[in-house]
Amino acid sequence: MTIDIFRDETDLERARAEGEGGRLKKIGIFGTGMVGVTIANKLVSLGHEVRMGSRTANNEKAVAWTKAAGAKASQGTFADAAGFGELIFNCTQGAGTLDALNAAGAVNLKGKILIDISNPLDFSKGMPPTLFAGNTDSLGERIQAAFPDTKVIKTLNTVTAEVMVNPGKIGGGDHQMFISGNDAAAKATVGEFLKAQFGWKNLLDLGDITTARGTESYLPLWIRLWGALKTPDFNIKIVR
Amino acid sequence: MTIDIFRDETDLERARAEGEGGRLKKIGIFGTGMVGVTIANKLVSLGHEVRMGSRTANNEKAVAWTKAAGAKASQGTFADAAGFGELIFNCTQGAGTLDALNAAGAVNLKGKILIDISNPLDFSKGMPPTLFAGNTDSLGERIQAAFPDTKVIKTLNTVTAEVMVNPGKIGGGDHQMFISGNDAAAKATVGEFLKAQFGWKNLLDLGDITTARGTESYLPLWIRLWGALKTPDFNIKIVR
Repeated sequence: MTIDIFRDETDLERARAEGEGGRLKKIGIFGTGMVGVTIANKLVSLGHEVRMGSRTANNEKAVAWTKAAGAKASQGTFADAAGFGELIFNCTQGAGTLDALNAAGAVNLKGKILIDISNPLDFSKGMPPTLFAGNTDSLGERIQAAFPDTKVIKTLNTVTAEVMVNPGKIGGGDHQMFISGNDAAAKATVGEFLKAQFGWKNLLDLGDITTARGTESYLPLWIRLWGALKTPDFNIKIVR
Repeated sequence: MTIDIFRDETDLERARAEGEGGRLKKIGIFGTGMVGVTIANKLVSLGHEVRMGSRTANNEKAVAWTKAAGAKASQGTFADAAGFGELIFNCTQGAGTLDALNAAGAVNLKGKILIDISNPLDFSKGMPPTLFAGNTDSLGERIQAAFPDTKVIKTLNTVTAEVMVNPGKIGGGDHQMFISGNDAAAKATVGEFLKAQFGWKNLLDLGDITTARGTESYLPLWIRLWGALKTPDFNIKIVR
């Protein structure tokens, strides 16, 4: 089975051993692309129940993923996934994020933590993509403004999908992940989750959701680094 | 003397030992702020002849610097510094950079390497600063477009002044500096210079001057990192 490559008993034991951060959860994933599938596979492999949401209940990619991923996996609309999850990952492309969240519905997202991995990348004008939000704004802020009763936590958006769920893949995991958000308790919960489930070691709380401007604005450098390094498997470490 | 703290015999020996990158030069510095003074002091301490340029021939800060920095130091207008230097450092604030370069004059900059350290930071709308160029443009590109006969090399703009001239100050110097520019030979010359004179170990050529969009766009993250880390003495290392 495809997802067996993501199974890692050490991860599983660690997740189960580390209290709240490691507690098995019901998780909603928005998006059926590479990021959504990579995160969904990792979470299922760790024992979580995962529902993948998309525009329609029978999205072809979501159905295929559910079939491959086994008993802990299911799929549905964005609203289905939002209602199901106690924790939500937004893995949609930035240009479609607000539409997806509107389809999910504020009522289904109310009071929940939304881990926002999206970036405001505009591919419509050719490569490299530009940013459709930034400088005095960010996609993270737009989401938080549109869904004031949801705890929006911006993180993971500065690395490629494989590194998100397996930071140890590069440099022994000794590199940096950033977290932005208005709710301190939600940030702590997400931080514990990233450590316990994905193995992140170095997390840096940048501050409130406006600091998402910083990490989203890093994407143009990330894209140039990808070009220069010829691989997306890299991250940055803070040296001081 | 103030500049004695920048004198480092090891640096000096290394600079003199390493051929072209270490050859003593006549260098023009645009700007009398912290970046300009820090770079000028370092270069004088290494034995280079340095002329600091500003809007007027008798700028108070430039005169004070010249007096303190000794026989290898002089000051004058932007045009004086441009005419003097075989290598030019643009250390002006981004908002004033094009005015400064216009005052320097295309004829004085023709055929020369301009190391552009400026960032397009707009402080007029309060803190944190925003970017007045970016996304589909960069200040580096604007400079190169305005001075097509000058070899514009964007570098050093991603760290604080003290780290620019002393990367070993943090993490044993094991972190990254980026270089962008259209002229491969000029980039190689600047790279050798940064290694020989300032001790940079890890240089990454991002590509042509459009890649300055990447490093300039990193500034909003740099500013947030400064806030979170409570010190400007940091840099990023590429981990892969």
